[in-house]
Amino acid sequence: MNEFERIARFTEAFEVLPAPFGPGDDCAVLPPSRQQVVTTDAVVEGVHFRRRTFSMADVGHKALAVNLSDLAAMGAVPTWFVCALGVPDDVSPQDLRALARGMSALAKVHGIRLVGGNVTGALQLSVTITAAGEVETPLLRSGGRPGDQLFVSGPLGDAAGGLEQLDDAPSARGHLALAQRRPHPHLAFARAAAPFATAAIDLSDGLLQDLGHLVDASGVSADLDSSSVPVSGALLDWCGAEHALELALTGGEDYGLLVAVPQARVEAFHDTLARAGHTAFPIGSLGRGDGVRVDGRLVRKRSGFMHFR
Amino acid sequence: MNEFERIARFTEAFEVLPAPFGPGDDCAVLPPSRQQVVTTDAVVEGVHFRRRTFSMADVGHKALAVNLSDLAAMGAVPTWFVCALGVPDDVSPQDLRALARGMSALAKVHGIRLVGGNVTGALQLSVTITAAGEVETPLLRSGGRPGDQLFVSGPLGDAAGGLEQLDDAPSARGHLALAQRRPHPHLAFARAAAPFATAAIDLSDGLLQDLGHLVDASGVSADLDSSSVPVSGALLDWCGAEHALELALTGGEDYGLLVAVPQARVEAFHDTLARAGHTAFPIGSLGRGDGVRVDGRLVRKRSGFMHFR
Repeated sequence: MNEFERIARFTEAFEVLPAPFGPGDDCAVLPPSRQQVVTTDAVVEGVHFRRRTFSMADVGHKALAVNLSDLAAMGAVPTWFVCALGVPDDVSPQDLRALARGMSALAKVHGIRLVGGNVTGALQLSVTITAAGEVETPLLRSGGRPGDQLFVSGPLGDAAGGLEQLDDAPSARGHLALAQRRPHPHLAFARAAAPFATAAIDLSDGLLQDLGHLVDASGVSADLDSSSVPVSGALLDWCGAEHALELALTGGEDYGLLVAVPQARVEAFHDTLARAGHTAFPIGSLGRGDGVRVDGRLVRKRSGFMHFR
Repeated sequence: MNEFERIARFTEAFEVLPAPFGPGDDCAVLPPSRQQVVTTDAVVEGVHFRRRTFSMADVGHKALAVNLSDLAAMGAVPTWFVCALGVPDDVSPQDLRALARGMSALAKVHGIRLVGGNVTGALQLSVTITAAGEVETPLLRSGGRPGDQLFVSGPLGDAAGGLEQLDDAPSARGHLALAQRRPHPHLAFARAAAPFATAAIDLSDGLLQDLGHLVDASGVSADLDSSSVPVSGALLDWCGAEHALELALTGGEDYGLLVAVPQARVEAFHDTLARAGHTAFPIGSLGRGDGVRVDGRLVRKRSGFMHFR
């Protein structure tokens, strides 16, 4: 299978526009945009997934999901993406098709269109995506102000629990394993929250680390109440309350959102989200100074990390 | 060195805008565009380069150059790019800085701005870039018409000769090795040629293959005159006329341009390019039907390749 066959095999799973608006020329021609945002993120075999525990469709889904999550964090509406693949010799045409289908199914859900790509040989399977979206007023990490309330868009720690579970039992197929293999970007939550939020970030590296980025960018501090951090029943059942909290605070890859909302807008924020069918979980607030405190204890200084325990 | 340190190490070589217009948030916010084009291309260790023969600066230069060449083929003015790195453990901070400097020097020459990126661990060093440009009327592969004259923007085969030379002598530093390690995208040529051309493609996979893409997309045939295909004195001196022609026709990675110009515009095209300091080399013409002929002999059928000899 040569490069062109690989591209054809990959592209056929998508609804693409004809060239030059889709694949088939040196570049994709994009329609004039409003305010455009763009992000790039990769998933690499042995680093972000193992073929033992991820199906090809999982890989395709997750590679796009992590990019869509970045668009969600800006409050953007996804518009287009390009996809660069690194493909080892033992990946079959069927594998490629499965990977593409996992990706295209998610693309269809969120109305984002593949406009180009690249395929190269490689020792590890990797998927590098650049995705763009449009937004009137982008949500930034840097807009948080002292007094803002902090919310997350769903339970945390499931993906990290799923990773541990899959390491023990590669064939695990429950809620936690699914959270690890098939994260769903919180785009609808983000768009509903955007008019109320001063700052947002997606939760890819773990709550404490990502919150650290937000407070550093905003020039504020944060206080978390650990008893308010939402964890799922599945996670509690699987590993107990203590480890569940640790995973919720420091585990990554949940791809939920963290948003800051001024106190005066919290009620309207809650009402609007509830009407749209979303739940925002309050976990703490921003304050003056710097660093992140959990239950009053400093766990993260400016641009640095202190071990949670 | 963690991911954030790697990103910082990489980014410090560039002139970047503050977040959200440059790196530092989940996405980069792009200013409203005219007509935007975007491309993605990767260079991977062991596939596109070897560390034995490429310096880190060479890798950074070439990764951006191959993307800029795609923008050139559309007649676009480069605007922004994002860069995703796969970094093995044995790549040092100094290596990363050198890679970034090779890339940023080329970025500066062509006025393209880094707006985001990603770093992940990997077994092979890889650089995946997505680059965008703006253009009023994009040049396409599909616009060629019977009767159009074909031109290339410079001598061909040097990069393929350089690859053979570096395989024999990893420390080679002459013209051919430089063409392989440091291709220069022909953006200025492309912009001067764009008002006259009906179709264009960049020469990444070798003249016969890339011309095949252009004739397939345009629904035409092509006739090449092998004695008109330009080859450099350095290539002739190194491997003789017969092998030089083979490399010029089938060797890849020159990253020059192939353009089609209607007969009625050829004189004005030549004059305009000469005034801008460029030379366009005529190599043949487009006709009815399909396939590519060299000196009257069919060497490539529609969507297929026949060995040149």
